[in-house]
This record gives sequence, structure tokens and C-alpha cells, in this order.
Amino acid sequence: MIVIIKQNVADEKIENLKEHLTQYFHVSISEVKGEHTTILGLIGDTAAINPDLIASNEIVESVKRVQEPFKSSNRKFHPDDTVIDICGRKIGAKDFQVIAGPCSVESEEQIIEVAQRVKAAGATMLRGGAFKPRTSPYSFQGLRAEGIEYLLEAKKATGLPIVTEIMSLAHLDLFQDVDVIQVGARNMQNFELLKALGHCNKPILLKRGLANTIEELLMSAEYIMAGGNSNVILCERGIRTFETMTRNTLDISAVPVLKRISHLPVVVDPSHGTGVVWLVEPMAKAAIAAGADGVIIEAHNNPAKALSDGAQSLNLDQFDDVMKTIKRQVEFEGKSL
Amino acid sequence: MIVIIKQNVADEKIENLKEHLTQYFHVSISEVKGEHTTILGLIGDTAAINPDLIASNEIVESVKRVQEPFKSSNRKFHPDDTVIDICGRKIGAKDFQVIAGPCSVESEEQIIEVAQRVKAAGATMLRGGAFKPRTSPYSFQGLRAEGIEYLLEAKKATGLPIVTEIMSLAHLDLFQDVDVIQVGARNMQNFELLKALGHCNKPILLKRGLANTIEELLMSAEYIMAGGNSNVILCERGIRTFETMTRNTLDISAVPVLKRISHLPVVVDPSHGTGVVWLVEPMAKAAIAAGADGVIIEAHNNPAKALSDGAQSLNLDQFDDVMKTIKRQVEFEGKSL
Amino acid sequence: MIVIIKQNVADEKIENLKEHLTQYFHVSISEVKGEHTTILGLIGDTAAINPDLIASNEIVESVKRVQEPFKSSNRKFHPDDTVIDICGRKIGAKDFQVIAGPCSVESEEQIIEVAQRVKAAGATMLRGGAFKPRTSPYSFQGLRAEGIEYLLEAKKATGLPIVTEIMSLAHLDLFQDVDVIQVGARNMQNFELLKALGHCNKPILLKRGLANTIEELLMSAEYIMAGGNSNVILCERGIRTFETMTRNTLDISAVPVLKRISHLPVVVDPSHGTGVVWLVEPMAKAAIAAGADGVIIEAHNNPAKALSDGAQSLNLDQFDDVMKTIKRQVEFEGKSL
Amino acid sequence: MIVIIKQNVADEKIENLKEHLTQYFHVSISEVKGEHTTILGLIGDTAAINPDLIASNEIVESVKRVQEPFKSSNRKFHPDDTVIDICGRKIGAKDFQVIAGPCSVESEEQIIEVAQRVKAAGATMLRGGAFKPRTSPYSFQGLRAEGIEYLLEAKKATGLPIVTEIMSLAHLDLFQDVDVIQVGARNMQNFELLKALGHCNKPILLKRGLANTIEELLMSAEYIMAGGNSNVILCERGIRTFETMTRNTLDISAVPVLKRISHLPVVVDPSHGTGVVWLVEPMAKAAIAAGADGVIIEAHNNPAKALSDGAQSLNLDQFDDVMKTIKRQVEFEGKSL
Repeated sequence: MIVIIKQNVADEKIENLKEHLTQYFHVSISEVKGEHTTILGLIGDTAAINPDLIASNEIVESVKRVQEPFKSSNRKFHPDDTVIDICGRKIGAKDFQVIAGPCSVESEEQIIEVAQRVKAAGATMLRGGAFKPRTSPYSFQGLRAEGIEYLLEAKKATGLPIVTEIMSLAHLDLFQDVDVIQVGARNMQNFELLKALGHCNKPILLKRGLANTIEELLMSAEYIMAGGNSNVILCERGIRTFETMTRNTLDISAVPVLKRISHLPVVVDPSHGTGVVWLVEPMAKAAIAAGADGVIIEAHNNPAKALSDGAQSLNLDQFDDVMKTIKRQVEFEGKSL
Repeated sequence: MIVIIKQNVADEKIENLKEHLTQYFHVSISEVKGEHTTILGLIGDTAAINPDLIASNEIVESVKRVQEPFKSSNRKFHPDDTVIDICGRKIGAKDFQVIAGPCSVESEEQIIEVAQRVKAAGATMLRGGAFKPRTSPYSFQGLRAEGIEYLLEAKKATGLPIVTEIMSLAHLDLFQDVDVIQVGARNMQNFELLKALGHCNKPILLKRGLANTIEELLMSAEYIMAGGNSNVILCERGIRTFETMTRNTLDISAVPVLKRISHLPVVVDPSHGTGVVWLVEPMAKAAIAAGADGVIIEAHNNPAKALSDGAQSLNLDQFDDVMKTIKRQVEFEGKSL
Repeated sequence: MIVIIKQNVADEKIENLKEHLTQYFHVSISEVKGEHTTILGLIGDTAAINPDLIASNEIVESVKRVQEPFKSSNRKFHPDDTVIDICGRKIGAKDFQVIAGPCSVESEEQIIEVAQRVKAAGATMLRGGAFKPRTSPYSFQGLRAEGIEYLLEAKKATGLPIVTEIMSLAHLDLFQDVDVIQVGARNMQNFELLKALGHCNKPILLKRGLANTIEELLMSAEYIMAGGNSNVILCERGIRTFETMTRNTLDISAVPVLKRISHLPVVVDPSHGTGVVWLVEPMAKAAIAAGADGVIIEAHNNPAKALSDGAQSLNLDQFDDVMKTIKRQVEFEGKSL
Repeated sequence: MIVIIKQNVADEKIENLKEHLTQYFHVSISEVKGEHTTILGLIGDTAAINPDLIASNEIVESVKRVQEPFKSSNRKFHPDDTVIDICGRKIGAKDFQVIAGPCSVESEEQIIEVAQRVKAAGATMLRGGAFKPRTSPYSFQGLRAEGIEYLLEAKKATGLPIVTEIMSLAHLDLFQDVDVIQVGARNMQNFELLKALGHCNKPILLKRGLANTIEELLMSAEYIMAGGNSNVILCERGIRTFETMTRNTLDISAVPVLKRISHLPVVVDPSHGTGVVWLVEPMAKAAIAAGADGVIIEAHNNPAKALSDGAQSLNLDQFDDVMKTIKRQVEFEGKSL
């Protein structure tokens, strides 16, 4: 960590600060004296130091981190790709997964029909929302516990592992038989939830928040990993920008950045990431080309009557076509689906 | 709600859509036929209709809302300012409040000292974090239950009502004696939490999320109000933009916008909104000039040793000075503090 | 265009507005009367109407466009892909181009060496900055007229068409022998420059501004096309967001959006779009997978000594490798390079 | 400037880099060796060094600036407020100015009427667009040279100094009698234009670009000041964010930031900054409370028929009212108007 001192500060004050830092943070200090500026280099374990605390000192101009604040998810300390096993299906390194299904579970018949069709098309896991985070309290909130039961029926019927979103710690017991627990974008910094998920041993699909940096995504992964659960799958699903033609701006560059600085698998959600049905295919292709380990795609038996997010859902025939493209692209990348 | 049909669509398809909309959403339809474009106006209660469902129809170009989706918080249906009573102190209309205190409660002595000093300076409520949402799991997470006890001691010592953040439904019982429950920016769309807070009768300070629109802030207020709790105080605390000189960009224009479209009181947090101690005073002034009903300000007995967010905390002498400015400005606006 | 009237407005005022609109804008009007809301549909040529003018009327709640404001670049009126010929090389439809070269032209030897090497690797056009838009007046500003001469020498030596940026109308004469004139992101809304380029018959590479929407990019293309020059190549080069790990956020979704709503060729600049050398390859791949018609890539004989933008420049050996990947990917997409 | 070396780099490579930096940039180097990380401090005149050049070296992790890159506009080297004289009216320090007028000059009668009315209300300078930067080539582009003539007539009639926007170097001769030349947001980084304005001795009103940081605004001021013209007035006019209720997000915090780090006068444009007529008054108040040296406000004799930007223009009666508020607020701040 580097501490930049304001110009023309008396040496005595700098000495006081050095003493304070040494005692308070158990670091050693190396000093660089320029003509106008003095810089202190803090040496030791600085990951737990809050730079703001030092920045608030009256003689400090600014504080800059050198070490990355994420550890467990950092590729520097774990050079090999993490591969996560989900009911025998692997994700990470050379193994690719396609997670597909409707935004919301609407009925047992619906979810089983969709599961059978997406499986036939080549999807390897089933997604479906039981608990739905909706901007408006007046919108459909999901079938909740009942939705999870229907997902489990669809798993029984097809063998597809299921992925579904948790919205509250209070529902954790209901997720006992769920294969992958999804943390949605709006809960990416629901730290109490993340801590609890660190103590269960299930794979967690952690979605990037709309206004969260790549580093913050990894820090949220740290919350889960610090509890002992290292089965974290990162998910890019679009960030909020000024552009209005797409619902969000899908940050494809986050894929190679995450793959380089972290060892965790990365999936991309082109459905929520764009909010536009005809962008799902090209953006899924782009994600695979950029190095993603999987995609998560909305497909619905009747999007025009879906109880949520119809605009971005493929119908099942469209999904068949997109799946053909995905298979070719994954093969081209030398990965196995 | 307005449905714009794609160009050159066969009349029969449009008729089918009209029939579908009438049956499915119980609305009546008025049609505008242009040379190239047909537009359908949906008349009736369209607030609960998800525009995306209609937009996913293959003949639909786009769908535009006419009615605002927020109801309980909407000034159209409640023209008078809501005034909320907190232990005899009022906020809203002509009544202004100053909420001050440290980012984190660190000890009983600390919080009592700060409470006494900010009260002496003129603050009317005490804030302090017991549960702390921190980006890193390796940072101080707050004193939690113990922190709330110390806040209650500080209330006993000074009479100041206390404001503190809830991070999980699971902790709700601990907030029984808290006067105002704060929902932090990261939990603005933790809908399960909002629903639960709708069923308690305490004032809720609802902070705007970093990437949330003004409309989304009101929709989150709806979640609380829909449950029966209409004591919602809205809080602008900065949005995330590309600018890096300030931690966030404090959206002062949100104040007059919210005051115009909603009847709820609005407070501004210039400490978190800027992240810079010397910006607290000018931005508090700007907030008051723009019509805010209160400000919430970080003040600490020793910011350089604070366990969180030192960089934006005023020390107690600085707070005395800022408070003088605030008093003058509130008086100039014809409000009472 | 749709005009939404405020609630509970007297019929007489609505009639006055209708009369005013009919006279002032030469449109006919269709009216939709709801329980609370009245909506006016304006029928006729509304593309030239500024919605703000109508929105400023006291009885108007809001105004919404139905027709897209771009015409010449709109695929609706020109369904086939535009293919542009540059010295016999084609871009658009099935023809792909790779434009490569250094950020700045630094000397005759340098630009010729780079031109020979990128040509050998498979690049089809040469880029190089003669006039350089630099944030700081204290940074290297380019060799200017001299730089263009060196580019022309490099063209003579290699046969590669040259692409270089114009920063001012005053320099237009110097661009007589340039093959493609680039308009940089900072000049995307330099409308006087765009107008002038509409009157020359050279291909224009128009880069999207850092804070400009896709629609605004097309409106700037309209400026050029309205003057009679329809040889416009659109370029996505990253937008400004809150993310700091990449210099900009390369909006890959802009590629399929632009290809769908416009017939113009689209190229992507992964070098400026990310600002990070190791992101150039994966993002070039993503761009091609998403449907781009070309890429523009920085390559330098000695990036560590480059006079500008070293951090994002490939060295020539790295460019060889990236070029191999690009060739495979372009072939996979069924395009010819 | 601080150079952070990657982990576990051989000492020899670090020595090579140090030698290279010393020779190439004429700096001396101080080294900080941590357990995992080595840091080099570059001492000397580093303002002209492009950090990217150093960052592109293969052993460099990152490079961080210590010195601010702006000099002439920096308060560190010019502690006193700059006060600019415009035909005897002063702006800066304790002197406040109100610039008012229509978005576009539409006719001689119109601009004279508006000038007389805004003068009577208390405005001290007249604004009006002759050259208009419009997103669409199909929109009204301004009266151009004729518009400047009408502005000069309005000056003759009222004595108000005139402020109007330049869009191209080619028009500079037409601005000979203009009192303040405005550089619009879209031209903030039209560096060739800025350089030319550095060689004229007129006050320049430099508007912040929609996606430009505060530092970039100051760097553009540097372009003008480096040419010898130090009469630069900075203008905050809103930045582009995800919020849609306002056209832009007016960054009020930019005012106190600019006032602290620069000595130049700062004005705020609440009309363009919000795009909403009823936000002009509260945001003008907020700007003054935050320390602005002036405001620039759109006022029109008939906004509903304005040829541009009607939605944000006050009519002249509204301007009278807003002006009363502004006068009270300026007086409260102890400034003179």
C-alpha cells in the first residue's frame, strides 16, 4: 500500500504518521522523498487495511493499493482453473455448460415441458425462478416453495440439475435439494446471505450486480469462499449504462478479465444482459469466443404469455436454433459440452 | 399503456392481438392508424401489466407506459406532504432533521461521546452502524447486537432517537427499540426484507441504490407501503458514475424530482454521497437549497482511527462548524430544525 | 409521435393544442381518450419535429417518438448490407477487413516497418495517427502533416490503403490522398466537421463517442450521409462506465444492434475499447462472433517506447499471433478476409 | 509517479527498467522493496510522462500518478481566485453573474425582447445560440452569422455582454465582437479549437462534456491556458448517467471540487443540466449554495414555439420569479450580483 503525503508537510508530522502506521497496522515502512512529494510504502500484510482510514489523516493526499484485496478467488494463489462438479457435469477449464429454462416457474406442466425440450436441444442444466425479485410489488412474485417442488419434478423427469435463485436466508431450508443456488444481481452485496452460503457446500452461481465492479464481484465471492465454500461460479449479466437500446450493457470484457485474475468458472447471461430476444444468439457466441465456461439462457414454452420477462425469452423452437449455434461455437473453441 | 405495432403488419394479426389483450388484461383498446404505423392505446388498470409481456409479441415494435407504476408513494393520489413523527420529532413539510453520528458504533464510550457532542451542536437524531455492509469479508463487520445495545445507551444518555441499518430479516427482533430502521443502498432491492418491513410500524429510512433510478427507489418504497407501513423516508446518497474525484455522484436533482412526484420526506447523505470530508458542508447546503427535509452526516470522535469510512467522517469540531452552516441554511429556507 | 396529456385537463385546452399541432407541424391527429388520460397520435412526417417543443406545453405530460429519427442509415429503407470499396478491398456483407498499425506515426522508418510486418501477418489496411487528440496539451500531439506523408510512403511500400484521423476541418486538404478518413470518438458530434465530410466522397470511419448512444452514432452518420456521402463505416470503441479494470467498456452488443437497424458496415476497436494489451485478442474474437465486419487494432514495433498509448499496443510478434486467431475466427464465420 | 513491479521479477530486469526510465524520462528513482512487490518512485518533472508508456513494459503491474497533470488551472500554483472582467462585469471570488437568454436566436425582435426582459429581471449577460449543435441534421441548425448580428443588436439595445457558442475554427472571425465565446459540451475535447482559442484574448466559457471527468475538464482548460489565454470560465452542465427522469445528472459536487483544486470561476447550467423547466429554480439554488460563481439559464419569449430545447426553457414570467430567488440566494451567500 502506498501513502502519498501532501506537499510541504513538516517532517515531524510525517514521522508521527509513520509511527502511527507502524504501531496500528503492524507494517514496516519505506520512504520515498521527492522534491515536492513524500511517499510511504507500507510493507507487510496490507490486505485487511482500509485505505480510507489512512486517507482521512490530514497530511495524507491519497492512498493507493498495490495488492489486490481478493485472495481465495485470486489466480495468483491458485493458478489452475477451478472445475466444479454438478451432479457429474463439470464446469471450468475445458468443460462448458448450458443452463436454460424459463424466467419463472409457472406450473408443473410448464416446467416439465420446457425441461424436456431444452434437454432435447442440448441444454445441460435447468434454470427457473421460484422466488422472483421484481421491481414492483404489484408484479407476479413467483410460486416460491411450490416452484421449487415443480423444479424437482422436472429434474426427476429429465435428469437435468436445477439452478434457482435464493432471495432470503429465511428460505435456505427450501433449497436443500437444489443443485446450484443462484444469487441474483440485486443480492450480490447482501452480505449476510453470502456468509450463510459460505457455510453450505453447494455450488453458488453469483451474478454481478448492475453497478458493481469486477473487483466487487470477486469480493462477494470472497464472502462465500471465506466461509469454506469454494464452489463459486461467477456470472456476468450486464451492467447499467446510459445506453437504452439494450436493457443493460453486457460487459463481455469481464469474461477474459475474470478468467485472468481469478480461477473460478465464468458464465454469461445474454438474456438478462441484453433484454432483447434477437440479441441472445450473437451475444452467446461473443461470450463463448471471449472464453466463457457456460451460458445461461431464458427459454419459455410461450413467451408472449410468460408471467415475467417475456421480451427476452426465446421460444422453444428459437432455443433449438440457438443451441445449434452454441454447440458449433463451443466445439470451435475446443471445449466440451 | 401504448402498444406500437410494427410496420406493414396484416390487419388480421392486429385484430388477434387486440382480442388477446382485451381478454388477458381486461382493458379496452383504442386504435390509432397512421400511414406506416398502428398504435393501440390500452385503457383501464394497466399498472399491474408487465410491458415486456406485450413487447415479446412478434408484431409489437415497442410498448410505452403512460401511468406511473408507483401508487402509494405518488403525490397525484396524496397531494399533501407526508410528515413522519419520530419520538416527537417531525420530518417532512416544514420540519427538518439532522441525523449525525459515526459510520460504525465502536464502543459504548465512543457512541455516547459522539451522541453528546452532536446533540450539543444541534443534531436531532443519532446514527451509527451496528451491522455494517462491507465490500470485503476481511474488513470490520460491525459490533452487531452489541452495537445496538450501545446505541440504546446513547439514546438513554442524550434523548436522541436512533437510526441504524438492518442487513437481514433474521435480525429484525434486535431492532425492536430502534427508532428508525435504515435500509442501505445495497439492500434497496432486497425485496423480502422490504416486505417484512412493510409489516412493522416503524419509520424506515430507505436509501437509493448506487445504480437505481428514482422510479426504482419509489417502487421499493411501494414494497414497504403495500404492506401497510407508510412511514418511509427516502434518502439520496449518490449514484455510481464514471467520475472518480468523488466516491459517488450525489444526485441533488433527485431531491426536487422526488418532492414533486412523491409526498414522502427526502433526506440527503452528503458523507457517503461524496466520500470526501470537505465536500460534506457544501453538499449539505446544496441539498437544503434544493428542498431536502433532512441530512444524514457522519461525525466521529477520531476519524483517523475509525474502524470504517474514516475519509468521509467529520471530526466533532468540524461537525460543530458544519452544523452552524446547516442551521443558517435551514432557517433561510423557512424550515424549522 | 405520441403526445400524452396530463390528467384532468379541460377539453378546450386539448382542442387548442390539437389545432396548434395541426397548423404548426402539418400532421393529422388521432385521439385516444382513457379514463384518466388522453393521448394524441400525430400522423404524418414527424421525423423533423423536436419532441421537446411539444413537451414544453403546459398540458403535456410527455411525448414519445414512434418513428426512428435516422433515415439514410436505417435498414428499413435499405434492406441490403452496404458494401464499401476501399482501393479494391471490400467491407460489409461477407467481406471482412483488418486495419492495423501504431497509435501514432513516429517516423518514416517506423511506419514502413510496421506496415510491412502487419501486411505480412495478414492485415489489409494500415492505420496510424498523424493528428493525435490527447487529453493533455503537454503530451505528444502527433507529427501532423509530416505524419500523413510518412503514411503515404508506407502505402507506396506495401500497397495497404491508409486510415488516419482528422481533427479539424482546417486540415481537410491534407487528407486528399488518404483512403479512409477517421472521425475520432471525441469528434463524433463535431457537426461542422461531419457536414464537410458529407461533401467529400471518401469512406469515413466514424467512431462512437464515449458517452454516445447507438442512436446518436447513427444520427452522426446521418450528418455525413445527408451531404451525399454514403460511405460510412461505423466503429464501436468502448463507452465510459464505472468499471475501472478496463479503460472503457467495449459494448459488443452494439455490433448486432447496429447490424440489425442499419445497413452500414461495423468495425470494432478492441485496443482503445479495453486499453489493455491482453484483452485485444479475446475481444477481437468476441467482436467477430457478434457479427463485426472488421477490426482495428493497434500494433507497434516497440510499444514500451511508443509516443502514445503504449499500454494497449501489441508488439509485432504478438500481432502475428492475434492475426492467426482472427483469420480462423473470420473463416469460421464464413466471411472472407 | 509510482511504478509497481509485478511479483517475483528478476532483479536484473528491474535494474534494466530503472536504467531505461532514468535515461528516457530524466527522472531519478527511489526503490521500495516489499516481500512480494517492488515499487519505484520516479522523482522529477513527471507531468509530461504518459503513464501508459511505462505500464506497457512487461514487468510493470501498474503505474500511478502522484502529481496532478493540470498546472495553469491548478490552485496549488495560483492560490487566489481568478476574477475575469467582461465589459466591466466581474466573475469569480465574490462576484456572481447571471447569464440568460434563449437556446437559439430566432429573429432580431425575439432576441431583443428577451434581452430587455431578462435585463429588467436582473440578468447580467445575454446568451443565445447562433450556431447550434443538434443531434439530428434534420433539426434547425441556427441562424449562424445572422444570429450573431442579432445578438450584437440586442447588446446595443440593452448593454448586456453576449455569450454565444462556437462550433468550428472556421467561424472564429465572426466572433470578433462577441464578449464571451462558449465551447459546448460536445466540443470540450475538440483540441484544435481549444488551441486556437488559446491565442485569442477573449473570455472562454468551457462546458464540461457529457462523459468527461472533472480532471479532463481542467485539462481542456489547460489547452486554452497553455496558449496564453487565462480567461477561462468552467461550466458544469450535467453528465450522462443511467437516470432517465432528468436529461442529464447535474453534478453539483463538481462545483466545490473545482473551486478547491482550481482558481478558475465556475458557472452552472441548470437548464441543460436537467432538461426540465421546473428543476431550473431548485438546481440554480443548489448551485449557488455549493459555491458557484454564476448560472446560465435558458429563457424564451415563447418556449412552446421555440426552435430548439423548448422543454427546458423558462418563459419570461417564470424567469422573473426564478431571478428573485437567485438574487436572495446570492445575497445570502455574501456575493454581489
